[in-house]
Amino acid sequence: MLKRYFPILTWAPDYRRATFEADLVAAVIVTIMLIPQSLAYALLAGLPAQVGLYASIAPLVLYTLLGTSRTLAVGPVAVASLMTAAAVGEIAAKGTAEYLGAAIALAFLSGAMLLAMGFLRLGFIASFLSHPVISGFISASGILIAASQIKHLLGVSANGKTLPEIARSLAEHLGTTNIPTLIIGIGAIVFLFWARKGLRQALERLGVKPRLAGLLVRAAPVFAVFVTILVTWAFDLEAAGVRVVGTVPQGLPTPALPPFDLTLWTRLAVPALLISIVGYVETISVAQTLAAKRRQRIDPDQELVALGGANLASAFSGGFPVTGGFARSVVNFDAGAETPAAGAFTAIGMALATVLLTPALYYLPQATLAATIVVAVLSLVDLGAIRRTYSYSRGDALAMVVTILVTLGVGVEAGISAGVGLSVLLQLWRSSRPHYAVLGQVPGTEHFRNIKRHRVITASDVLSLRVDASLWFPNARFLEDTIYGAVAADPAIRHVVLNCPAVNFIDSSALEALEAVNQQLKDAGVLLHLSEVKGPVMDRLKRSDLIAHLGGQVFLTHHDALCALSPKLTMGTQNAPRCETAR
Amino acid sequence: MLKRYFPILTWAPDYRRATFEADLVAAVIVTIMLIPQSLAYALLAGLPAQVGLYASIAPLVLYTLLGTSRTLAVGPVAVASLMTAAAVGEIAAKGTAEYLGAAIALAFLSGAMLLAMGFLRLGFIASFLSHPVISGFISASGILIAASQIKHLLGVSANGKTLPEIARSLAEHLGTTNIPTLIIGIGAIVFLFWARKGLRQALERLGVKPRLAGLLVRAAPVFAVFVTILVTWAFDLEAAGVRVVGTVPQGLPTPALPPFDLTLWTRLAVPALLISIVGYVETISVAQTLAAKRRQRIDPDQELVALGGANLASAFSGGFPVTGGFARSVVNFDAGAETPAAGAFTAIGMALATVLLTPALYYLPQATLAATIVVAVLSLVDLGAIRRTYSYSRGDALAMVVTILVTLGVGVEAGISAGVGLSVLLQLWRSSRPHYAVLGQVPGTEHFRNIKRHRVITASDVLSLRVDASLWFPNARFLEDTIYGAVAADPAIRHVVLNCPAVNFIDSSALEALEAVNQQLKDAGVLLHLSEVKGPVMDRLKRSDLIAHLGGQVFLTHHDALCALSPKLTMGTQNAPRCETAR
Repeated sequence: MLKRYFPILTWAPDYRRATFEADLVAAVIVTIMLIPQSLAYALLAGLPAQVGLYASIAPLVLYTLLGTSRTLAVGPVAVASLMTAAAVGEIAAKGTAEYLGAAIALAFLSGAMLLAMGFLRLGFIASFLSHPVISGFISASGILIAASQIKHLLGVSANGKTLPEIARSLAEHLGTTNIPTLIIGIGAIVFLFWARKGLRQALERLGVKPRLAGLLVRAAPVFAVFVTILVTWAFDLEAAGVRVVGTVPQGLPTPALPPFDLTLWTRLAVPALLISIVGYVETISVAQTLAAKRRQRIDPDQELVALGGANLASAFSGGFPVTGGFARSVVNFDAGAETPAAGAFTAIGMALATVLLTPALYYLPQATLAATIVVAVLSLVDLGAIRRTYSYSRGDALAMVVTILVTLGVGVEAGISAGVGLSVLLQLWRSSRPHYAVLGQVPGTEHFRNIKRHRVITASDVLSLRVDASLWFPNARFLEDTIYGAVAADPAIRHVVLNCPAVNFIDSSALEALEAVNQQLKDAGVLLHLSEVKGPVMDRLKRSDLIAHLGGQVFLTHHDALCALSPKLTMGTQNAPRCETAR
Repeated sequence: MLKRYFPILTWAPDYRRATFEADLVAAVIVTIMLIPQSLAYALLAGLPAQVGLYASIAPLVLYTLLGTSRTLAVGPVAVASLMTAAAVGEIAAKGTAEYLGAAIALAFLSGAMLLAMGFLRLGFIASFLSHPVISGFISASGILIAASQIKHLLGVSANGKTLPEIARSLAEHLGTTNIPTLIIGIGAIVFLFWARKGLRQALERLGVKPRLAGLLVRAAPVFAVFVTILVTWAFDLEAAGVRVVGTVPQGLPTPALPPFDLTLWTRLAVPALLISIVGYVETISVAQTLAAKRRQRIDPDQELVALGGANLASAFSGGFPVTGGFARSVVNFDAGAETPAAGAFTAIGMALATVLLTPALYYLPQATLAATIVVAVLSLVDLGAIRRTYSYSRGDALAMVVTILVTLGVGVEAGISAGVGLSVLLQLWRSSRPHYAVLGQVPGTEHFRNIKRHRVITASDVLSLRVDASLWFPNARFLEDTIYGAVAADPAIRHVVLNCPAVNFIDSSALEALEAVNQQLKDAGVLLHLSEVKGPVMDRLKRSDLIAHLGGQVFLTHHDALCALSPKLTMGTQNAPRCETAR
């Protein structure tokens, strides 16, 4: 039991020197990657730079204690930071104490919700987010985030939450572009893109070993940070109008309680839920992918607990919502991390950075951080997915396009809500019209097949119907419509046999529909029979009135039904004795 | 085409004298029943009495033109009237012109929505309302309606929208009870209950023919109205504090446009949608039930059009939302109505009543109408359904109880929304964990069965998995979890064969899950195969990348898969030649 909630107990006792070394190397690489990212995502969320550092210490330790993934790296990520900015921006103005307080409260609420969902084993709620919706949402977020950073690259003041608003505001302020800022920003972007695409090959051509080359590529953002700090300091670019990060408080965060304010919590509840679910889906996707590659196992419900713990830790140490980062976890995995201890070592690295490096961050241009963000998020944008999805399923592509357009045009919460709503509607629509077949007998056999696809024989007064779905409220009305329609269309019908091998479940709506069908058919002189009802379904039906009131019978096989109801038809199969098994 | 949208063209050409007589008799009976009901439901909706009469004329004519049910009787009904009162009460004070205007706008919006849903064939939206939710909602509405009428029976001023509010308000005003009103109210209730239970037998014992006795029972509310009008007039009970209907404008409604006010429409949009859906579900249920008894057919999408037309007609003639009434339609059916013409004849009857009877309504006590409502709605309350549903499905019973409690405690819109939300969540939860089985071979046969239920043999390096559900976003994560879990648990596994006879559909979320599974398994040295994929599913899969990238193969039968992957296991079945058919 203790092991279930503290998975560290399963791996810590076997912890060895070799594992320690592997984890340490991975932690160093992740730390180098995480320093600029944590600063940048705090900026994206509209928060002081140090909040990003704070959110990269305690949460990682908590995940080490609670997480079941060996290689997941948690911390501030782009999409959750954008969602934080959107939610908190509704409540307070950037730069105020209320804004920071609301971001901390958001982490707290999100953590509490995740923890509750974990204890209640409600991980299935994440299923609401279909792939097209999550993919569309992440693409749209990437575009929105990149657009929101252009002002930092230009050194202008602009605002706006939707793509049209941002574009309009940028157009208005374009005249005030600060040239030194633009040079730093464009330079950093070009360098970072090149580092992604060409640096590794260039280094390897120079004879650098692949492993070191890979490490140097990861260090490119830190290098950009270092160089631009130097340049800004050396040429006093702050005086030339280049906006810098400025004074960052030195030292570790002081533990504090998140603000307790019910009005604030009420206003943040929906955003906190959305951030929790989106964050969880991202986390579980990457954790599962990496675990499967090594045939390891993660526990989705415990991941809710771990992510909840990480967010609570973030809130109590002055941070903002965190989640499992995709790129960061892949780096951790590739760098050879073997246990969640790598996360704790990364936390130590980030703590050292918070203590030692903060004075140097004064001269860090915001444009450099913006460039880091732009390069990172553009890899999230995958508009080709629309075409691929469209070629497979138009409905799913529609859900994706709507999610993208609403996210860009209205906002992140509206976008994800519209996508989820449409997916659920689509699922309901599909559920509401299941595949069904009118059956006939394959001559000389006991097999019954779709009369539209096979040469079969049918009895004029028996309608054999197979519905290829569980019967429940989305298709209860369809079931009634279909049976009544078929019976009304053919006055010769005296028996309807519902063939149920594909029915895994009958809910009470479908049960009532069947009871109504049974009654209405009886009144119209037609008997309803069932055949091939699965064991668990039959057990449940016996607890209802349907079987007692059934006009017809329940047959073990459809062939039994036909040889009881229409002996002439089935005579050729010489199976008369089996007819005795009815009911 | 014209016939599809105007079903009257299908039956009117064959209209005969005998049909006319049957329809006329039914229309007389329904008119007698509808006069007090239409007044009472207008009162319930907080509207002047004549609005109930107006809503019982033009809508009936429109339904005659557009409806596909032979026997449905539309008009004001209890639940829609309660929902109207709840929605319009948010916007204006009772008795004002704004209140009436909002009720008319609600009918207009509801009509427009129903019409749009009909043309777009969106009838499936009604599937959102599962039986437990609709049943719970109607029971709770019945209780709320009855509670809301107590003040009229006591002759006190009370208010409140939820059961606790109404109870508190009644308790406060109990001291001001008007004794003459109470006597009329209790007298009417006792008489009407007795008329329902004992009048028919009493009349038949007196030698009245069954048909006439049935008619007289239907006339009981009209009789109560007549007697209480006489008593109130004769003893001048208005002066004694008995509240009466008062002056009712004489004559037919003047056609008028509903108020065009976008702000108003926006505020009424959600209530209009809920009224439309609830009304449609009631309508379609009763229409389908009655049609099936005579082996007739209704067209659910055309019923949306017809109900939409009826509501627009109501709005344009100064009425409020209407729908197909359950009790009224059953009476129409029992009275022998054969075509929708009976509805048009009822409309003529109601028009005559509006012209001739309105002066007499001045002295009609509100307590009499309240008694009519109480007796009518208490038959809607079916709390035993909770127990019956609980014994069949706890989840469905929970949805029902939540719907009832929220409707009573918070309000009608909140109640139905909570019920729908919970049903969808429940459906998602069920969809998210489909039944699945690990398969083994029944020795000496080509059959594969659940290893937990049958004596079967398995190959140590092949995992055969059958999922008994379509694969889509609610269970995409489950699919990944299940496969990764099984493979991680048994290092011997080299092949996973997904047996797909129960898979009717794979959406893009599940497709991506399968692609991920395929890739992750490949990386872990395991091949993913598919077997028994249905034709339409395979056609769609061929449009994706999955088949091209599949680590393993697609087999026609599961036996083919096993004899290709584990020939030793299947040797005994002497089916080697069939193995050639793979892929």
